[in-house]
Amino acid sequence: MFNMNFANLSPLEARSLIREDKMTRPTAGVASGFVQANLVILKKDLAFEFLLFCQRNPKPCPILDVTEIGSPIPKLVAPNADIRTDIGKYCIYREGILVGEVSDIINYWEEDMVAFLIGCSYTFESALLKNGIPLRHHELDSNVSVYKTNIACIPAGRFAGPTVVSMRPVPNKHLVRAVQVTTNFPSTHGAPIHIGSPEHIGIKDINKPDFGDILPIREDETPVFWACGVTPQAVAMQMKPEIMITHSTGYMFITDVNEEQLTIL
Amino acid sequence: MFNMNFANLSPLEARSLIREDKMTRPTAGVASGFVQANLVILKKDLAFEFLLFCQRNPKPCPILDVTEIGSPIPKLVAPNADIRTDIGKYCIYREGILVGEVSDIINYWEEDMVAFLIGCSYTFESALLKNGIPLRHHELDSNVSVYKTNIACIPAGRFAGPTVVSMRPVPNKHLVRAVQVTTNFPSTHGAPIHIGSPEHIGIKDINKPDFGDILPIREDETPVFWACGVTPQAVAMQMKPEIMITHSTGYMFITDVNEEQLTIL
Repeated sequence: MFNMNFANLSPLEARSLIREDKMTRPTAGVASGFVQANLVILKKDLAFEFLLFCQRNPKPCPILDVTEIGSPIPKLVAPNADIRTDIGKYCIYREGILVGEVSDIINYWEEDMVAFLIGCSYTFESALLKNGIPLRHHELDSNVSVYKTNIACIPAGRFAGPTVVSMRPVPNKHLVRAVQVTTNFPSTHGAPIHIGSPEHIGIKDINKPDFGDILPIREDETPVFWACGVTPQAVAMQMKPEIMITHSTGYMFITDVNEEQLTIL
Repeated sequence: MFNMNFANLSPLEARSLIREDKMTRPTAGVASGFVQANLVILKKDLAFEFLLFCQRNPKPCPILDVTEIGSPIPKLVAPNADIRTDIGKYCIYREGILVGEVSDIINYWEEDMVAFLIGCSYTFESALLKNGIPLRHHELDSNVSVYKTNIACIPAGRFAGPTVVSMRPVPNKHLVRAVQVTTNFPSTHGAPIHIGSPEHIGIKDINKPDFGDILPIREDETPVFWACGVTPQAVAMQMKPEIMITHSTGYMFITDVNEEQLTIL
């Protein structure tokens, strides 16, 4: 009942509750059918290189919106929102080190900041489910397995690093459909970047994810790897910007964009 | 015979001939099967806003590659090329005014310049032809009709302006296929932005194009409008940057990218 209500909220209603600290839970399942996004905020002097990094690596870093320099309004995906208040929990990093988690960033916002909203996997996961493809981490109420790979992102300026992937076991009979369904959502990581053999992308032990949980893979299933939105955050953190602000894991930004609007076909 | 040779050149061979001023013709039909690109060069202080403009308006401004600040090497699409020498003819604009056409820009290149390579319609036109959809401007050996529309681009920073479109008459029986074929090439303008009724997008007289040639539309044909690569140049020119360099019309940059590599399916 409680969850049902969260699912039926409009994006505007959900963001208002978050803004007023009346909804402090993670956003999975909230405002069902609307695209949620990862957040990375950097200062202007890094904005061109980071945007170029995302443009060169669209699978891990699919850009949904970028604010004007100094503006907290994501005018393409949520023109009534304020990026400084409408996420439940933010992480503040200084020189690459987490220095705090806060529920708004009004006091951290500066006139030369730029906010990047980056697609997240919730959208293609809901499409997989609608297509009858089960998700193990939903069944187990856990997280996907997340790994660093040996696939280097294409560097841009001061930004460089490995592609991070999430893994979902897919029944072999659904492999083709899983590729098709996710291909249709390039703005939220799109088609898988690898199917099967984890060692070919530098994953030594599938049972030792770098982040997230271990997911059992059954005999009639194959591990499928999608580029993960952790990549841009990890890459940005690695170059130790003076200040970087992100959403906290699971506390995504809820856009006004209907998931179906992101399909290419 | 002569044309045949140009068509069979590799991109590397074609660029070498252009670099050595041994091939001074427009590039249509040269190195057949490889993607050609529009060029816009701006200085670093405009680079973020222009990249953001392109990212927000991917149909008129599909980014194929952007060079690092100060580097003339388009390392994603032609790592052996030099953007300063490998185009046949360049336009130099100061404060939005054309001040010269030159065959290389070695003496104009500055350490804080960034080159943007933007997809062009040659790629989807070749796909249309392969799918049996005729092109009137090829039959007539003329140019497409190009119009300014009342569809505003989404502004970014100092960049704003209308979407410019190219028009091709398509036989009604091929309309659906024309949409499908070009949808598959989002990096080179992608699906049409409008079909039929020119007045709905602010074109008062189809027989008075703003650029290019008049194309007769037969009774069993419909005018189809695609976003045009003239848009980013026009928008950049309008904000009168201190210096801007572009390719000259028809003298495109030839990349190493095979046209098929750009399809989404």
